[in-house]
Amino acid sequence: MEQLGVALVGVGTLGKRHAENVRWRIPEAKLIAVADADAKRAAQVAADLRIPHCYEDLGSVLEREDVRAVAIAAPSKFHAKVIEEAALQGKHIFCEKPLALSLGDADKALAVVAKAGVQLQIGFMRRYDPAYVAAQQQIEAGEIGDPVIFKSVARDQQPPPLSFFQGGVNGSIFSDAAIHDLDLARWMMKDEVTGIHSYAGVLACPELAPLGDVDATLVNLRFSRGGIGNIEAFRKSTYGYDIRTEVLGTKGAVHVGHLRQTAFDVLNKDGIRHDAVNHWLVRFADAYLEEMRDFVRNVLADKPVRVTGQDGRRALIAALAAEQSFRESRPVEIRQEAGPASALHV
Amino acid sequence: MEQLGVALVGVGTLGKRHAENVRWRIPEAKLIAVADADAKRAAQVAADLRIPHCYEDLGSVLEREDVRAVAIAAPSKFHAKVIEEAALQGKHIFCEKPLALSLGDADKALAVVAKAGVQLQIGFMRRYDPAYVAAQQQIEAGEIGDPVIFKSVARDQQPPPLSFFQGGVNGSIFSDAAIHDLDLARWMMKDEVTGIHSYAGVLACPELAPLGDVDATLVNLRFSRGGIGNIEAFRKSTYGYDIRTEVLGTKGAVHVGHLRQTAFDVLNKDGIRHDAVNHWLVRFADAYLEEMRDFVRNVLADKPVRVTGQDGRRALIAALAAEQSFRESRPVEIRQEAGPASALHV
Amino acid sequence: MEQLGVALVGVGTLGKRHAENVRWRIPEAKLIAVADADAKRAAQVAADLRIPHCYEDLGSVLEREDVRAVAIAAPSKFHAKVIEEAALQGKHIFCEKPLALSLGDADKALAVVAKAGVQLQIGFMRRYDPAYVAAQQQIEAGEIGDPVIFKSVARDQQPPPLSFFQGGVNGSIFSDAAIHDLDLARWMMKDEVTGIHSYAGVLACPELAPLGDVDATLVNLRFSRGGIGNIEAFRKSTYGYDIRTEVLGTKGAVHVGHLRQTAFDVLNKDGIRHDAVNHWLVRFADAYLEEMRDFVRNVLADKPVRVTGQDGRRALIAALAAEQSFRESRPVEIRQEAGPASALHV
Amino acid sequence: MEQLGVALVGVGTLGKRHAENVRWRIPEAKLIAVADADAKRAAQVAADLRIPHCYEDLGSVLEREDVRAVAIAAPSKFHAKVIEEAALQGKHIFCEKPLALSLGDADKALAVVAKAGVQLQIGFMRRYDPAYVAAQQQIEAGEIGDPVIFKSVARDQQPPPLSFFQGGVNGSIFSDAAIHDLDLARWMMKDEVTGIHSYAGVLACPELAPLGDVDATLVNLRFSRGGIGNIEAFRKSTYGYDIRTEVLGTKGAVHVGHLRQTAFDVLNKDGIRHDAVNHWLVRFADAYLEEMRDFVRNVLADKPVRVTGQDGRRALIAALAAEQSFRESRPVEIRQEAGPASALHV
Repeated sequence: MEQLGVALVGVGTLGKRHAENVRWRIPEAKLIAVADADAKRAAQVAADLRIPHCYEDLGSVLEREDVRAVAIAAPSKFHAKVIEEAALQGKHIFCEKPLALSLGDADKALAVVAKAGVQLQIGFMRRYDPAYVAAQQQIEAGEIGDPVIFKSVARDQQPPPLSFFQGGVNGSIFSDAAIHDLDLARWMMKDEVTGIHSYAGVLACPELAPLGDVDATLVNLRFSRGGIGNIEAFRKSTYGYDIRTEVLGTKGAVHVGHLRQTAFDVLNKDGIRHDAVNHWLVRFADAYLEEMRDFVRNVLADKPVRVTGQDGRRALIAALAAEQSFRESRPVEIRQEAGPASALHV
Repeated sequence: MEQLGVALVGVGTLGKRHAENVRWRIPEAKLIAVADADAKRAAQVAADLRIPHCYEDLGSVLEREDVRAVAIAAPSKFHAKVIEEAALQGKHIFCEKPLALSLGDADKALAVVAKAGVQLQIGFMRRYDPAYVAAQQQIEAGEIGDPVIFKSVARDQQPPPLSFFQGGVNGSIFSDAAIHDLDLARWMMKDEVTGIHSYAGVLACPELAPLGDVDATLVNLRFSRGGIGNIEAFRKSTYGYDIRTEVLGTKGAVHVGHLRQTAFDVLNKDGIRHDAVNHWLVRFADAYLEEMRDFVRNVLADKPVRVTGQDGRRALIAALAAEQSFRESRPVEIRQEAGPASALHV
Repeated sequence: MEQLGVALVGVGTLGKRHAENVRWRIPEAKLIAVADADAKRAAQVAADLRIPHCYEDLGSVLEREDVRAVAIAAPSKFHAKVIEEAALQGKHIFCEKPLALSLGDADKALAVVAKAGVQLQIGFMRRYDPAYVAAQQQIEAGEIGDPVIFKSVARDQQPPPLSFFQGGVNGSIFSDAAIHDLDLARWMMKDEVTGIHSYAGVLACPELAPLGDVDATLVNLRFSRGGIGNIEAFRKSTYGYDIRTEVLGTKGAVHVGHLRQTAFDVLNKDGIRHDAVNHWLVRFADAYLEEMRDFVRNVLADKPVRVTGQDGRRALIAALAAEQSFRESRPVEIRQEAGPASALHV
Repeated sequence: MEQLGVALVGVGTLGKRHAENVRWRIPEAKLIAVADADAKRAAQVAADLRIPHCYEDLGSVLEREDVRAVAIAAPSKFHAKVIEEAALQGKHIFCEKPLALSLGDADKALAVVAKAGVQLQIGFMRRYDPAYVAAQQQIEAGEIGDPVIFKSVARDQQPPPLSFFQGGVNGSIFSDAAIHDLDLARWMMKDEVTGIHSYAGVLACPELAPLGDVDATLVNLRFSRGGIGNIEAFRKSTYGYDIRTEVLGTKGAVHVGHLRQTAFDVLNKDGIRHDAVNHWLVRFADAYLEEMRDFVRNVLADKPVRVTGQDGRRALIAALAAEQSFRESRPVEIRQEAGPASALHV
């Protein structure tokens, strides 16, 4: 069996999970190296997972000829730059969302990727979640008629640690969190977002206020064919990690998401109680594995990957528009012409 | 519109509900009188519901010519006797379960009813509950193939007051509680019970031990065509009034029952919590109304009632067999010949 | 027992339900008369419910001295006018939502009511639904901390008949449907709406397009203390009548609504299937009864009613703003000053 | 890190899963060899999982010094014999349920194990399932008071292939299927079964009749301290793999099991539909991994394993009693004295 040599760039919480998946659960891939700006963390992960090589600098990873693909889970701010460098070295690329934090960076990276002729997949893992996949199959089978309303909720049980928000390296609630739902909106509605309006605020995490970020937003959407939608992102629901999506069509609806983790209830005089999903690594464990497996297989088979750089770019445009709407207190229109420069028409 | 003149005999908790239903919610019926051995209670209910007449003795009620039907909700011990007297006066009869507390009493009452040519409906209200009706329709439509396994759970949140158990006027957990499930077993399996084995005990209500009753039983069933079943009755589940039934067939299953009363959840760091149904008058409010409405309509239309004295007798036989199995620590066989004397073969 | 003499004005589907409740289920009230512009309908309802009087014209009803209160379920366009006339005759008033279709009409009616010194309750029945009541109690008990996000969904299984939309007598999706959720938003968030943005369209009922109405809207909300919200109204979900509300707080959340009508599941190789609530008269049967009972009791006790004309006015302002936002493609700000003229600042 | 050398004996469906878990997911273990009477199957699994050695005969495996523990997933009939041989070679043993198919075989194997001083864990994996673990923690924390009623349902979606039932190598529905629930009964009730009554039959899989097995049973239980219980095993529920357990106590209850696999619903005019768990490898994926990990860790740490040979023996006694009850149409009493000979008192 041919194996795809992979290097992991960035091994924080999610990067380590990707590393574990490549190392243990995808026989078609061989995890050759991990790299992290934090050399100690890279070494630790390499030791834990028994990976042969670890690096502090990107260059050394990209020099290796046995590394044919890189998976990027560095902070969002560095995504575009790492993509560019990897593409210049002819590596295929799996990159966590978002593609970039600005449209300029995104377009520059995509141009380099295009020129290098390498593959680029964006980590919108929900497209690989069994529940979303099942829902999408129903839509494609015509079970709900034409999809006309898209609703999505994305609630973290607790916000990431404060360090996550500092320095702006991970984007805003729009480009970091709601971007998943904006991608789902395009994918499940089979349409593009053309109008966006958002309200937002610091409602439950006052520690975010000094950092200029918000912890809650409601994003109203209008699609090119007339459909409408709404996305909620909230950083602190306290009761669980709650991801739910509904798509309503002219003949029915699909719902994704279920407020339960463990198949167990306690019943007493105070009522009936169960738990909720508590973490994204639990909720999307299968999805993180499946997206990487699919990337590896498509690269090996020289087939196009399923979630492309253009998908990453479209979702980024919508996320930036949602943030702009909030900042400027007005709806933002998005033009859908071909050219990148005109994409965000404000 | 012709109205059926009805008298209510016994106006405790359930009798009063029947009275309210006849008084307010069944236009085809006219509630003429209530009777109760407790004259004060009869007077109070008559006042509350604005019913013209109330009596302490049965005879005065039965003398009234405008009373064409009686609904009996007196203690179980008196059911058979009241049925007899009412039948002798030519009244049509709706009687709460059980038909009687002994097979001898049951057969005597049925003989009088047969001779008088009046109608007799037994209050197995679950047959009128929308969920049970829907389940039965699925079974009859062949959706589950042949029904082969019957499972039922009947849990009171709290036992009735101690006075309910005193004097043996309300039967045992078998003839008072499990008898509902024994009737459902016959109805939903379209078969007769031929073998019974039960374990039972005082598990949660030690105050019942001196009275010779038990608060929990598990009754294993075998049906004439080979199907099997199990019924649980429990007097004190604490978390709610929990009635659930499953019928498994060769091609699928139906489940009846749902552990929720109010459409509302609280979600916090301790989990997700909702309430449970808390009382049989809540769970079966529709069923109590529908059974009475159906009785009234069938009597007025001179059509046979849907839950007959024979149904009451068959369920009683099974309940007595379940109790005997517990008392004698052995399975009990039930013969299904025509004659009453041979019905319970021990 | 003193009884409140009530007349019902408008006995379409909902008016008839109110009439049944007053007639049969509220002993403190006496239903004296029904009136309807459709004389035949009035006569039919009077006959069905055995109500002594029926009228074609409002004046004859209001002349009756034994009628101390009127319940109005006429088309929305006539609400304000009927309120005025009833108030001028000194009748207490229960009026279906919306209070009026324009702010001018609303203010004129409220002025007459204030001058007449009669009570006016608006039919926001969800405030009386057991699930909403339970949720609100949790909020008031501090179980979710400070409420910060309000989400609500209101989906009809099928739209009302086309005649409902003709002539504009019943308002738009904003003033007819979303107004319930706008009232809940104020009630559950304990705050006022200050900003509104909506997208809307004809998505599933093309027959509405020629009438100038829409069948779907998503309304983004901002509250005075910083909270945010979103309301969906949709006329044709096909799978059921789906009303769900979530309020998220700093310490937890409450959810109202549950996608099930009958406590029964069918399980076979195609999956597990249950039904959904199919009609608003089913979902809110208790609420319609409780709101009327509460109105009657408060009027008899000379206590203030719980859902006031001002509540009706505030919800109307928000509904009009939502419609304006859609028509003008921009967010609309709502001023909260005392005076009526400045309430809607556009 | 010290690693425990493990060999897998029997690599059918479940054996292969154990092999995968040891190979990929338990860093403290090293999978040295697989063995299977079907040499081709052994070779295939070794190749798939990149395991260094594979054997057709048990002796060669047990000779290896680097193999310190064996995991047995051969047909049930051979469990006791393989345990004996492995124990004689000083290997620690993980063995799938049941311990044996006869009490004589079980006692003989346990005697050899005791003499050899090796560890023996029985594969009652449900004790490691997160939902059962959570339920048990609630019981141990006193949340339900004293457990008094045990209910369990175990339904296969479809029966195993006919070959599974042929030759009697896998025991009956009692020793193969219901034995899991009998183990749970002891574990969750913290008590021993002293009385058993069962009804059983061939209800949905007529192809089993010629083989002398049944496809459905309901087993009534009585415990030594007075508690009661019932277990259902059914080979063909068609709608899913349905494992549910309830334990009722004097102050509340716990329920384990949830009829849903994928977090996704389809809603249309026919109702609301979701899927069910379809396979035991899906439902208990975590449990199979956790039990093996726990075995490996305890062996390495020289600590006693958590599910012992005595647990296997007690469950077997109950399973044999249940079968005897069915065969002889009478309840069977189980003595709980120390000695093995008297355990099953018939």
